Amino acid sequence: MRTRLLTASDIAKIIRMEDVLEAVEVAFHEHGMGRAIMPPKLYLNLSRFNGDFRAMPAYIQSSAGLKWVSVYPDNPKKGLPTVLAMVIYSDPETGFPLAIMDATELTNYRTGAAGGVAAKYLADPNSKTLGLIGAGVQARTQFLAVTNYFDFSKILIWSPVEEEIEGIKADFKDLPIEKVTIEEVAGCNIVCTTTPVRGFIVKREWIKPGTHINAIGADAAGKQELDPRILKDAKVVVDDITQAKHSGEINIAIKRGLFAESDIYSTLGEIVTGAKRGRTSNEITVFDSTGLAIQDIATARMIFETARREGIGHEFDVIAQHKIRPR
Amino acid sequence: MRTRLLTASDIAKIIRMEDVLEAVEVAFHEHGMGRAIMPPKLYLNLSRFNGDFRAMPAYIQSSAGLKWVSVYPDNPKKGLPTVLAMVIYSDPETGFPLAIMDATELTNYRTGAAGGVAAKYLADPNSKTLGLIGAGVQARTQFLAVTNYFDFSKILIWSPVEEEIEGIKADFKDLPIEKVTIEEVAGCNIVCTTTPVRGFIVKREWIKPGTHINAIGADAAGKQELDPRILKDAKVVVDDITQAKHSGEINIAIKRGLFAESDIYSTLGEIVTGAKRGRTSNEITVFDSTGLAIQDIATARMIFETARREGIGHEFDVIAQHKIRPR
Repeated sequence: MRTRLLTASDIAKIIRMEDVLEAVEVAFHEHGMGRAIMPPKLYLNLSRFNGDFRAMPAYIQSSAGLKWVSVYPDNPKKGLPTVLAMVIYSDPETGFPLAIMDATELTNYRTGAAGGVAAKYLADPNSKTLGLIGAGVQARTQFLAVTNYFDFSKILIWSPVEEEIEGIKADFKDLPIEKVTIEEVAGCNIVCTTTPVRGFIVKREWIKPGTHINAIGADAAGKQELDPRILKDAKVVVDDITQAKHSGEINIAIKRGLFAESDIYSTLGEIVTGAKRGRTSNEITVFDSTGLAIQDIATARMIFETARREGIGHEFDVIAQHKIRPR
Repeated sequence: MRTRLLTASDIAKIIRMEDVLEAVEVAFHEHGMGRAIMPPKLYLNLSRFNGDFRAMPAYIQSSAGLKWVSVYPDNPKKGLPTVLAMVIYSDPETGFPLAIMDATELTNYRTGAAGGVAAKYLADPNSKTLGLIGAGVQARTQFLAVTNYFDFSKILIWSPVEEEIEGIKADFKDLPIEKVTIEEVAGCNIVCTTTPVRGFIVKREWIKPGTHINAIGADAAGKQELDPRILKDAKVVVDDITQAKHSGEINIAIKRGLFAESDIYSTLGEIVTGAKRGRTSNEITVFDSTGLAIQDIATARMIFETARREGIGHEFDVIAQHKIRPR
């Protein structure tokens, strides 16, 4: 039995948003059925370096594993991504490590895919305009995911980082992308917020009835992108209640008493399984995404199966032949 | 910047007990000085498969990382080790994964090394007899570690598994190893217990004054090797108070009210730093080892530095060149 190493370039050969969407939708379904096992993320805080690591283990669909992911906001100054991640994908029947894979791209894609699944179930099926607030990597994967389910006539974008907008326009040419004010972006049918801000930048009065919002940026205590009055007026769906309360878009509103756990409508898993209904009227819907270990392990499973089938990667031994004896 | 893969055979080329002892002694020193960061182990329990995984992150001495280790007691029937482990060794300044390494052998060695360091500080320096209760992998690494500090005239061994004793005698030939009763083994100057039993097998009346015991086998709630009266009469040193209470040799005695947290003399780190004195008389000493993430990361650091210096391992890229764009 050998272990498969999948490097960043191996992953790039395999990963496609359609496949990640399918894997992540199944992950939310299993979560909704109560069949996944996912202990809370464990943090290793290295505040002296302005960074942290998170250990994210999960069991889902006869697959087990762990993502080890770091978040260092100063990395771009050093030419490195803020988020770096590896997955160890293990056999749940023996613990054997089936694969070690680069998971930086996997993380980007699975986060996009959660927004795609949320929009599929919660947005107005006739949505014609997509608004992107923030224009970094997460905006790109939201775009790739959401466009699987809707035909947009207009894509509006706003970001405080001018180069990111130019980058998206250059890479996504032939697409009807327009740079406008944040208020105009917020007026779209589907709005994806992907900024790292710590005070809200999207106002209640900008949001029209029937809008669906993917709130992606807030993924740690103290982060917030939306006016709490949007949460109060919307049907709020979270990926996981415990994580959302601690580190999702709702965390600040809860701390300030502007939103309560009982105001959460459901988890996305409950919507996917049909236990709870999605959109029922011309309401505002918000998906609060924090990122779940089950998304990672379900995506790793798809990547591993593809790699094995297509012979991608480098195999190595993890069980030493040498016996412990005196030298 | 590239990531180094170190396979089981790479590790076998590098790992030597003398070096692991040095790394682990420094790890306990840093722990004693309060300079290490080590959140509690996170368990992924897969009871349906009779196994579990543990995520063990740590920061120590400008090194960070995580061990992902599984414990599946039925594995030997399938030709696999009970314990399988991988380490992701990361740069604490950026989160960059510097190395991925097989950590099954590392785990065996660092567990032995903790016993070696404990015996160095706690056992009678004139110890002449070594007793091994249990004869598996952990008995071998205890032997390799403890013999670095003592010259034994006699090594007595007992195990319920006959083949393990024959294996040790074959692999450690030219050494004065004798198979005797468990009572005779317990009469040695230094005694290492490495069995997975759940009810004590070492009786109080067998232990002579001045004995040092490395209690290694108990590493989960419900496990116990020593008569609780030994703990009551001994100077008990633990690797980590929280872990020892939860899953170390003392866990059952504490649960039954036969031993209290206040009966713990100190951590091994406090002994290594000199904050607490080691052996002071002809007393019985017990080291309760549960295994710490800092032992793993300190050992991984030594292995990584050696591999880099000697060019051992296989380097690969973890940062994809491909940008997220529509296909």
